[in-house]
Amino acid sequence: MARRMLLISNSTMHGEGYLDHCMAEIKDILGERRRIAFVPFALFDRAGYAAKAGQRFEREGYDVRALTADAQGLATLNWAEAAFVGGGNTFRLLKTLQDSGLLEAIRRRVDEGMVYMGASAGSNIAAPTIKTTNDMPIVQPQSFEALGLVPFQINPHYIDAVPSSTQMGETREQRLLEFLEENETAVVALREGAWIRVEGERFSLGGAHAARVLRRGSAAEELRPGQDLTGTV
Amino acid sequence: MARRMLLISNSTMHGEGYLDHCMAEIKDILGERRRIAFVPFALFDRAGYAAKAGQRFEREGYDVRALTADAQGLATLNWAEAAFVGGGNTFRLLKTLQDSGLLEAIRRRVDEGMVYMGASAGSNIAAPTIKTTNDMPIVQPQSFEALGLVPFQINPHYIDAVPSSTQMGETREQRLLEFLEENETAVVALREGAWIRVEGERFSLGGAHAARVLRRGSAAEELRPGQDLTGTV
Repeated sequence: MARRMLLISNSTMHGEGYLDHCMAEIKDILGERRRIAFVPFALFDRAGYAAKAGQRFEREGYDVRALTADAQGLATLNWAEAAFVGGGNTFRLLKTLQDSGLLEAIRRRVDEGMVYMGASAGSNIAAPTIKTTNDMPIVQPQSFEALGLVPFQINPHYIDAVPSSTQMGETREQRLLEFLEENETAVVALREGAWIRVEGERFSLGGAHAARVLRRGSAAEELRPGQDLTGTV
Repeated sequence: MARRMLLISNSTMHGEGYLDHCMAEIKDILGERRRIAFVPFALFDRAGYAAKAGQRFEREGYDVRALTADAQGLATLNWAEAAFVGGGNTFRLLKTLQDSGLLEAIRRRVDEGMVYMGASAGSNIAAPTIKTTNDMPIVQPQSFEALGLVPFQINPHYIDAVPSSTQMGETREQRLLEFLEENETAVVALREGAWIRVEGERFSLGGAHAARVLRRGSAAEELRPGQDLTGTV
């Protein structure tokens, strides 16, 4: 079945509430679906995270269950019409999904029609690998291979270099160019406020802010909000 | 033999030349030693990197050879009285040292008396693991285990949070606290301009700027330049 996905740069905009800036888009992609599995594994406090997200979705009339990293998890995925994978640490998220076997189960359910929604780390793991995460490698996953539900890499929270900075760490663009020294997959870098919507083979950019595509051997390409990315990535 | 090491946060201070801010300390720890192996694996352009570092050290009268990731590398390490491991991408650096077998050789040579000097990624790999690097995981190393020549983790380029920031990515401190959710090893976070000097069992903080120690379950501790860290970490 055609994949339906919403890959969000960041769950919260500065000064706004959790998921406020993207709730209209979430409602649009969900349509009549009501049953959401929330995946809290990117944060250490899974129960607190699940409570926060559950309240947010329940306020909109959805029925939410937290995914657990045990045998019950598979049943929750089979019950769910949609999954929302929360942000946090990408390495922790991926390792938990690998160790529990839920990574494969999520991939299968998306291909059966379950809507996939993710923010930040939850968007990173939809890509072929987590090699373009911004997160610190606090735990070692089995491998950097992720869901591979889209054919490009994602870099959430993309931030432009500050020309006046005296800090000598790499800029985000430098880091992504280092990725392209070692890998050929294109990277869609989502500024905060942006997201990608996937409808089968079609990809489109949504949200208030633009994004960039970085490819090996080409200049970075700026993308407009609302731009159709099909054929671009 | 007692380990002698210099673990530098950053190789270059804003507005200064390569290694200028730490050359006096480099000369001090090297003493009469003249033969330096430069490790360029953290950057893609190894030849360019080796040329830049070679010129810098030769200007000070040292004899420099670039480490190569082949059979010749071992001979270079055996020739060297000191190694300098340049910064760049920590994952690329560690993977190259693992795949070539040079990681073990460096560890052995340091225990035989070879002085170890590193900046940024070169400091990260002196720790037990690379789990507190700031770098993007652009390649997958065999494991996150590194040299383990000091008993604490290092976070180079440490940067304090900017209270006015509207960016929703994690601050550096938040990232290190996430590391401590999953790991018990203390972290020495080096602001730019700072370094750690190791003389056997003694650790001291040097350079122009202070550092912090972060431990699970304790408030972060600020360290003064010149402070003796022995017993603290």
